[in-house]
Amino acid sequence: MPEATGNSDFVVGVDLGGTKIQAGIYDARLSLLGSAKVSTKAERGVGDVLDRVARCVQDAVDECNLGLKQVRAVGIGAPGAVDSGEGRVIFAPNLGWKNVPLRTELEKRLDLPVFVENDCNLCALGVHVHELGGKPRHMIGLFIGTGIGAGLILNGELYTGHSHSAGEVGHMVILAGGPACACGNNGCFEAMASRTAIIKRIAAGLKDGEKTVLTETLGENLKDLRSGDLRRAIRRGDKFVAKVVEEAANYIGLAVGNLINIYSPEVVMLGGGVIEALEQEVMPTITRAALAHVLPGTNKGVEITASKLADNAGIVGGAVLAWRGAK
Amino acid sequence: MPEATGNSDFVVGVDLGGTKIQAGIYDARLSLLGSAKVSTKAERGVGDVLDRVARCVQDAVDECNLGLKQVRAVGIGAPGAVDSGEGRVIFAPNLGWKNVPLRTELEKRLDLPVFVENDCNLCALGVHVHELGGKPRHMIGLFIGTGIGAGLILNGELYTGHSHSAGEVGHMVILAGGPACACGNNGCFEAMASRTAIIKRIAAGLKDGEKTVLTETLGENLKDLRSGDLRRAIRRGDKFVAKVVEEAANYIGLAVGNLINIYSPEVVMLGGGVIEALEQEVMPTITRAALAHVLPGTNKGVEITASKLADNAGIVGGAVLAWRGAK
Repeated sequence: MPEATGNSDFVVGVDLGGTKIQAGIYDARLSLLGSAKVSTKAERGVGDVLDRVARCVQDAVDECNLGLKQVRAVGIGAPGAVDSGEGRVIFAPNLGWKNVPLRTELEKRLDLPVFVENDCNLCALGVHVHELGGKPRHMIGLFIGTGIGAGLILNGELYTGHSHSAGEVGHMVILAGGPACACGNNGCFEAMASRTAIIKRIAAGLKDGEKTVLTETLGENLKDLRSGDLRRAIRRGDKFVAKVVEEAANYIGLAVGNLINIYSPEVVMLGGGVIEALEQEVMPTITRAALAHVLPGTNKGVEITASKLADNAGIVGGAVLAWRGAK
Repeated sequence: MPEATGNSDFVVGVDLGGTKIQAGIYDARLSLLGSAKVSTKAERGVGDVLDRVARCVQDAVDECNLGLKQVRAVGIGAPGAVDSGEGRVIFAPNLGWKNVPLRTELEKRLDLPVFVENDCNLCALGVHVHELGGKPRHMIGLFIGTGIGAGLILNGELYTGHSHSAGEVGHMVILAGGPACACGNNGCFEAMASRTAIIKRIAAGLKDGEKTVLTETLGENLKDLRSGDLRRAIRRGDKFVAKVVEEAANYIGLAVGNLINIYSPEVVMLGGGVIEALEQEVMPTITRAALAHVLPGTNKGVEITASKLADNAGIVGGAVLAWRGAK
């Protein structure tokens, strides 16, 4: 591992996603000095993506009128199973990656120490440290987007379990025998309430003759539908989209109730594209359904909140990881 | 709290259940010297049950030719929500208890230090320390009987969460909109796979004209059916009972898969009356269904096993708690 220099007072947090790469420069107080964003272009292969991550880091550093010499370390989150000890991505289906030595490859390109984590773990770390000041002893960070995942803070620390895969709550079955999930099972939380699941249900409705304003702008192919499109449709009075989103919110609430019964957290923080775009529409339903599913007499006062960090949870989490690793 | 005397080399572990009270005398190596058992008779009220617990402890001590002066402390598990700091039972529906100062009342009766925990937590502690030598860093103890509960060992320690109610996995919904659960919700794990759920499904089958050998000995009223009756019926070739138990085992496996995705444990230890009586019948199905629900590529080598401690998990867990408290 390259050695950190003494007078480098910044770190870089990186969020490596299936569609875009984000990098942010942070000081020791976790203030964001500047950031950069590039598309991932995973289809070009591993080497190209690694080059693009390195370039994104350099762009962000340059944006702040800094040089790599002033950076102490890089913390990066990858969407999949990660061996954080080795800094290796074991399996990341959204990137098409298997067994990629992300740390080693980035250290080669940047000549800086690199620390690697699963993206949901990193987002939870960012929310816990930066948004909540590290206060809750037990927190679930639940992220609803294309997929669904969680990061866990238990006893004040990131909890990842024996196989470093704890918090794969998207594959908690909540409707046995329900709709097929990408994982091969049925009725997983992710198959009921992710953006992917919402799009599938809207597409099925269209086939059954339901009407929605979404087709005006997107046509019949909803593959590129974003969470913001759902919000705009609902605000234009689209009853069908409102109903589908309400159903998803009910399932999210049910799953949050499960997770409260299972982990007994102090705080559940929700994030991810669906929550960010539809916070006003879904949070009241999620909270109501969650509390209705919590075992009576337990977990009084548990807080269920949408994170304000939005897209920045991953990069600030990366910065936290980088500072911890660099010390 | 009464003070422990220096030369008392034994502790008592107590399992306070809805139908029976068990007490066991243990030395520092957790060898069981002797035990006693009395029925709970919860219907007689709190004071009577407390007297019976004290009597059961004294019987067990006497059984070993010891006196209470040679006992350093008592560890007791109660079936419900417990404030272990205060030693108070917040809510125990099976006993009809609300807000009972169990520690204070027992210390008054026994003049010994008393430590109180939730029964599933105590069973998990017993299994972890006594059966597995404290080795797994992350373990789930899952107990299937009249109800379903779990105790969690995370990072080598009992994990109870913010409200001391973590591990209420019996109220994880696995079939949204499914059968009613005693908790007021629908499709909870407990409503699908506890002995109570199995009995309900058999009773419903009888109404629909299914035949079972169970009615030969128990009549049409299955209220008093025990897990051993199910085993005997299956071994006599009762196809209907075998089918109902197989269904329950599939749901248990699905739920174990959920819990592995959620906690990423090294070991899942199963116990409780249903597992104890039906181990041979249900464990292969549970293991197969669990592994089929684990997210591919994660949690390789996770061990799913039936505990050998059976009925003694609670009292040995009580002994562990007592030794830890007494030190």
